[in-house]
Amino acid sequence: MKIKNRITDLFKIEYPIIQAGMVWVSGYKLATAVSNCGGLGLIGSGSMKPELLREHIQKAKSKTTKPFGVNIPLLRGDAEELIKVVIEEKVKIVFTSAGHPGKYIDILKRNDIKVVHVVPSVKYAKKAEEVGCDAIVGEGYEAGGHNGFDEITTFCLIPALVESVKIPVIAAGGIATGAQIAAAFALGAEGVQIGTRFAATTESSAHENYKQKIVEAQDNGTIIGFRKIGLVRMLKNNFALRAIEAENSCADEKKLREIWGEKRERLGIFEGDIEEGALEAGQSAGLIKNILPVEEVFQRLIIEFDQTIKKMSSLI
Amino acid sequence: MKIKNRITDLFKIEYPIIQAGMVWVSGYKLATAVSNCGGLGLIGSGSMKPELLREHIQKAKSKTTKPFGVNIPLLRGDAEELIKVVIEEKVKIVFTSAGHPGKYIDILKRNDIKVVHVVPSVKYAKKAEEVGCDAIVGEGYEAGGHNGFDEITTFCLIPALVESVKIPVIAAGGIATGAQIAAAFALGAEGVQIGTRFAATTESSAHENYKQKIVEAQDNGTIIGFRKIGLVRMLKNNFALRAIEAENSCADEKKLREIWGEKRERLGIFEGDIEEGALEAGQSAGLIKNILPVEEVFQRLIIEFDQTIKKMSSLI
Repeated sequence: MKIKNRITDLFKIEYPIIQAGMVWVSGYKLATAVSNCGGLGLIGSGSMKPELLREHIQKAKSKTTKPFGVNIPLLRGDAEELIKVVIEEKVKIVFTSAGHPGKYIDILKRNDIKVVHVVPSVKYAKKAEEVGCDAIVGEGYEAGGHNGFDEITTFCLIPALVESVKIPVIAAGGIATGAQIAAAFALGAEGVQIGTRFAATTESSAHENYKQKIVEAQDNGTIIGFRKIGLVRMLKNNFALRAIEAENSCADEKKLREIWGEKRERLGIFEGDIEEGALEAGQSAGLIKNILPVEEVFQRLIIEFDQTIKKMSSLI
Repeated sequence: MKIKNRITDLFKIEYPIIQAGMVWVSGYKLATAVSNCGGLGLIGSGSMKPELLREHIQKAKSKTTKPFGVNIPLLRGDAEELIKVVIEEKVKIVFTSAGHPGKYIDILKRNDIKVVHVVPSVKYAKKAEEVGCDAIVGEGYEAGGHNGFDEITTFCLIPALVESVKIPVIAAGGIATGAQIAAAFALGAEGVQIGTRFAATTESSAHENYKQKIVEAQDNGTIIGFRKIGLVRMLKNNFALRAIEAENSCADEKKLREIWGEKRERLGIFEGDIEEGALEAGQSAGLIKNILPVEEVFQRLIIEFDQTIKKMSSLI
């Protein structure tokens, strides 16, 4: 993999492979392991209070001299405080998701921060470009966790984004192998963001039980639940199937919020309750066969990518 | 595009590009136009009585000397009669869908017919291989028309199938461009099946209004409805949105069947009622900008494919 493009330039990284910010999964350990391999690691602030985020950033700085970033879900009530921490700690890359970046873009750009927004459709991609984002992540329906209402899949979303905006597009949703990275580039992406594959690594801070459930999942191992209150893709378990059953029996929004309850992600991903927690994961779980150190995942991705490109070169 | 592989060998075709059998869309005109370009055209028998299928096969023979096939939805009450026509007319390629091919495989193979089955997941792929199918079509969630309950997307389905069966895998669902054909090959497919792009051609027997609606569709232009009675992907219109609203208000199966009513596909696709018909189409509709003759579609696909492969060759 010898790629020098707008994404490697933007982040000053060796490989255009980005590890997604994931709640309870991507602390400084995972993020720095990815950055040290030449990719871009992201600390996922979704499960952190501002002071814990500060701690993770400081630890990350002690573990790597390479670039890393922070993912901030903008719907968080304290998003502004998280952004304040990022600025104070001089992190220069921020990925925003779940909300509109327009509100914070000025302060981020004034502090010389590269801003990338995660979008599920062309409409939001254009908005992100308009307000001045440096790049977008196009996240397909196969992605784990919170998901877009339009259900546009990676295979159709990426080409649509590439023809609609001028800023570079990073493909996300369903990517766990080097062959899939090659496919994403064929679709016009200039980088990939990978979640679930990195969640099932040694350095991921998730519970061992959760990692093991990813490894055991088959192609049909995930399901989308809670359509009425915001789609969530998760591994099938008692909790997920109970939610689906309630939806099929026409549970209203209030009932669904009750079923979701509180701290479901923490319960499943961090505490390892594999039946009652929300085990957010992408459809790529079906392609993940083992828990590996980040370095080995990274090497495999690059070898598979190279093999795929070599094989494809003979097709014309 | 210089591809000689198990799919081009199996069907004795020049390019591993297959036109999907589509109700009210793919009669002999469309199928032979595709076959004459060096791909594989399929007559879609889903909207035909046995004697009409015979007529289309006979006309196809008069229009091309190249291989073509017939698609047979096995859930049709008269599937056996359709198969009888195919055998009598000496068609040597059959694509089966919507059902289990085991019931008919013996009689098809005894008549020296190549059998390809359309599957939405690994489980059904293994069954198809077991009973003796020559290849499978892996059809992702982005595909138009009837769809699998597991909602596995092309991006995740194809790699999962390729590692699970030994017979060749044809990718379907969301494919409308040459770049996407390259992506499908990166994922391990040995051929592609394309529906909606060919539905919006001059030779398609669909109504002009339906073709125009495909061209106008954006990335979020389709929706999945009727989850309780079998998923259908279609363009958004009054009918589709009424079905979604009913589902959100907890309509039961009986009510949904009432809403579906009868001859919805005919009404929309063939008669051109763009508000009250079921305008089945894939998410790829968002990538289709014009109604073109098949020959031009074909040329564009091949040029885009070649350009994509060339660009990708420089990435290692």
